[in-house]
Amino acid sequence: MIKVTVYNEFLHEKKSEKVRQIYPDGIHAAIAAFLGEEEDISVRTATLDMEECGLTQEVIDDTDVIIWWGHIAHEKVPDEVAERVRKAVWNGMGAIFLHSAHFSKPFRALTGSPCNLCWRESADSERIWVIEPNHPIAKGLDRFFDIPAVETYGEPFGIPTPDRIVFMGWYSGGEVFRSGITYERYNGRIFYFQPGHESFPIFYQKEIQTVIKNAVRWAYNPSRRSTAAPWVIKTDDPSKYVKK
Amino acid sequence: MIKVTVYNEFLHEKKSEKVRQIYPDGIHAAIAAFLGEEEDISVRTATLDMEECGLTQEVIDDTDVIIWWGHIAHEKVPDEVAERVRKAVWNGMGAIFLHSAHFSKPFRALTGSPCNLCWRESADSERIWVIEPNHPIAKGLDRFFDIPAVETYGEPFGIPTPDRIVFMGWYSGGEVFRSGITYERYNGRIFYFQPGHESFPIFYQKEIQTVIKNAVRWAYNPSRRSTAAPWVIKTDDPSKYVKK
Amino acid sequence: MIKVTVYNEFLHEKKSEKVRQIYPDGIHAAIAAFLGEEEDISVRTATLDMEECGLTQEVIDDTDVIIWWGHIAHEKVPDEVAERVRKAVWNGMGAIFLHSAHFSKPFRALTGSPCNLCWRESADSERIWVIEPNHPIAKGLDRFFDIPAVETYGEPFGIPTPDRIVFMGWYSGGEVFRSGITYERYNGRIFYFQPGHESFPIFYQKEIQTVIKNAVRWAYNPSRRSTAAPWVIKTDDPSKYVKK
Amino acid sequence: MIKVTVYNEFLHEKKSEKVRQIYPDGIHAAIAAFLGEEEDISVRTATLDMEECGLTQEVIDDTDVIIWWGHIAHEKVPDEVAERVRKAVWNGMGAIFLHSAHFSKPFRALTGSPCNLCWRESADSERIWVIEPNHPIAKGLDRFFDIPAVETYGEPFGIPTPDRIVFMGWYSGGEVFRSGITYERYNGRIFYFQPGHESFPIFYQKEIQTVIKNAVRWAYNPSRRSTAAPWVIKTDDPSKYVKK
Repeated sequence: MIKVTVYNEFLHEKKSEKVRQIYPDGIHAAIAAFLGEEEDISVRTATLDMEECGLTQEVIDDTDVIIWWGHIAHEKVPDEVAERVRKAVWNGMGAIFLHSAHFSKPFRALTGSPCNLCWRESADSERIWVIEPNHPIAKGLDRFFDIPAVETYGEPFGIPTPDRIVFMGWYSGGEVFRSGITYERYNGRIFYFQPGHESFPIFYQKEIQTVIKNAVRWAYNPSRRSTAAPWVIKTDDPSKYVKK
Repeated sequence: MIKVTVYNEFLHEKKSEKVRQIYPDGIHAAIAAFLGEEEDISVRTATLDMEECGLTQEVIDDTDVIIWWGHIAHEKVPDEVAERVRKAVWNGMGAIFLHSAHFSKPFRALTGSPCNLCWRESADSERIWVIEPNHPIAKGLDRFFDIPAVETYGEPFGIPTPDRIVFMGWYSGGEVFRSGITYERYNGRIFYFQPGHESFPIFYQKEIQTVIKNAVRWAYNPSRRSTAAPWVIKTDDPSKYVKK
Repeated sequence: MIKVTVYNEFLHEKKSEKVRQIYPDGIHAAIAAFLGEEEDISVRTATLDMEECGLTQEVIDDTDVIIWWGHIAHEKVPDEVAERVRKAVWNGMGAIFLHSAHFSKPFRALTGSPCNLCWRESADSERIWVIEPNHPIAKGLDRFFDIPAVETYGEPFGIPTPDRIVFMGWYSGGEVFRSGITYERYNGRIFYFQPGHESFPIFYQKEIQTVIKNAVRWAYNPSRRSTAAPWVIKTDDPSKYVKK
Repeated sequence: MIKVTVYNEFLHEKKSEKVRQIYPDGIHAAIAAFLGEEEDISVRTATLDMEECGLTQEVIDDTDVIIWWGHIAHEKVPDEVAERVRKAVWNGMGAIFLHSAHFSKPFRALTGSPCNLCWRESADSERIWVIEPNHPIAKGLDRFFDIPAVETYGEPFGIPTPDRIVFMGWYSGGEVFRSGITYERYNGRIFYFQPGHESFPIFYQKEIQTVIKNAVRWAYNPSRRSTAAPWVIKTDDPSKYVKK
């Protein structure tokens, strides 16, 4: 059983009637709903208004893969929580960052990069092209799929060269974007996925759900909790050297 | 002075009145013309109908950067010529492959990959996005530029993960393509660039010329001819081991 | 069940009494023996003296992962057989190249590189360091392990930058070598592993067997035979364009 | 003229008579001395005891390449100074991290990784092998060179897969280490180099000086100060989106 925690700042849904109509219980609930239907996945959710954002050390220690949605309140996530997430990734927790989470504290800290990009409010359509047909995250997809309406992101995207570009986005308004990319950081796998603007029902689209389910299984590291093997260097406190 | 050899199979221009009107002296002549205006570049050309495709060992030994345009006669290039080019790249010759040259013998041999792609005859426009604004090949370009009419290529492109994706192509018909990519193979640098279909006057466009000039300078390895240093392993004949 | 074919040129064992004492039935038989004990692996072997090296199209089509050992007879493998192997890798067959197989026709064709290196006949010990403790090929290994006697390989190794360096070799005589490296080529995964000289009983060592078993499971692509999905571009004949 | 700033925490030299005998004016002075002899390089130094570590915004804005030596006082560098260095690298400043600087705040922030490693106090010799003979940082070096006495570092090194491994270290005591590695982060180039323990006269060794001089020229980005071009996304404040 893969234990997934879906974090959502859960603000747009409260402030905007339009967003609330799309995601009445929040984006996290919509994601948890389709993940929860999978036999090998168990889901919990966490939101900014919970204590420690719902991401206490106990929750993180019990999470195999975290999914992160944030947009207007990146700075409200305490540094300690963001660093807790980063260290957990180093130790093997998978992490999936959606849409505006490119500017979340954990993603920026894990990439070491500005993560800047261009953007445009629009209702462009986005065509997601599969660049790596054999990648586990692309499993079950056709050569491409279309999202009727998205917010447009554009290059240059200020990130380290990804390990793999699984998906490239084509926008009807003329932009391209590295819409689905992977990294590894020590023992942890990371996937960033561009679609997911709060104003459109993107997380109800079947292909989007397929990508996220695939990503959960790809990011899952079954040996995470056996890292006490003698040759494993403790990463919890990188400020200490480790003697052989 | 960077010594450039422009190879062109030079067949479309002879067969098609339409192509001949665009490139009356051949694509190679058009490329040589704008490169020849540069003070630090000297150019010669080679075509399929010349002896050994104009790419004798003497010519290759005297070439710093080769530019390759081929489309319908890849198989007519003798294996020995293709292998000569590949070995020269290993030894430090730069190589720039244009448009359909993704299927040329040297490019396929250097990448070790099928180099397959999807394509569509069209007069789509292509928007070339700069993904790596700081890359030498993107010098002097704005954030993107448009080509009014091209032949459309589409992903998946069957290549090894490139070292760098400098340009991504957006097509008005809905495709994306890794349109400008780099590799290194031993001592040699390689650049593939998607635009360049024979039916359109692409090589007269200023930005295209900028890209190719930049690529020549980037691919040029000034130490190529000093490879006799004692620690350099001879690559001319990889079938022989080399003793210390 | 993962179907493995172990190819060995099987010449040293016939020519040298010393080698025959170590591998009386050939290196391929030694490898097949320990792989055959695994419940999820079935093994067959192939040797140079068989028709088409034992690697007919039927055998290759029925192989999930090929293991390749060759040293003094690389050139005796017909080009058609080597190309058949390469195309199968493109289509998803895994490939493991052992020791001198860095100079085999398929490995050189898949990397597009000279694959040159330095070497020294020795009985140096080699210490294999795990660089990526979380990589599936390193599973079950301690921080390093020692091989009492090997042939020494040295850098520079004329290969493309690997996707991952899983193991680095330290030799008692003073060399280092990228001893365990991975690549992907289209749908296929490739692992090269340095140890395996014919004069030493290396394939009987437990850690070596662990590495090879891990590599078989890592290189196995379970979706290889379902590549008829509509978006999959046929790679069997890269000289033909493929229409959408 | 390339403007280099050499930062050194400058503590060992004050506390230890042994270190002071080797570097009476500090490690920074020794590095500045050999760099200052180069016609194309101008050097200044900065130390922890200076205001803002000697790395004010004015100094950083006037620096093309920073060299960083730190060991026991990483945490004493204020977060603001470390972040100022990181942003400057994003904007095109080169950065060279020496020895224990793998644990410096800027290096850890730029890599996004724990940067842990194993270590052993020793007087092992280290043999630095050139893995990429054609890389500009290896220019003028033979196939390898030896350092008579070093502190030993060992894998696994908790870093992202480097862009290039230029040097591998072989230690007489049995370890290997990725001793010379490169990264790019947005517009900036980064080089980490393992040798440089304070107890040994390593920075007086000719080959070490060659590596550092080469690295300065490689990391230098001449277009850093022209980043006001319209397509450049401001990276100074990644918390703000940038409109087209």
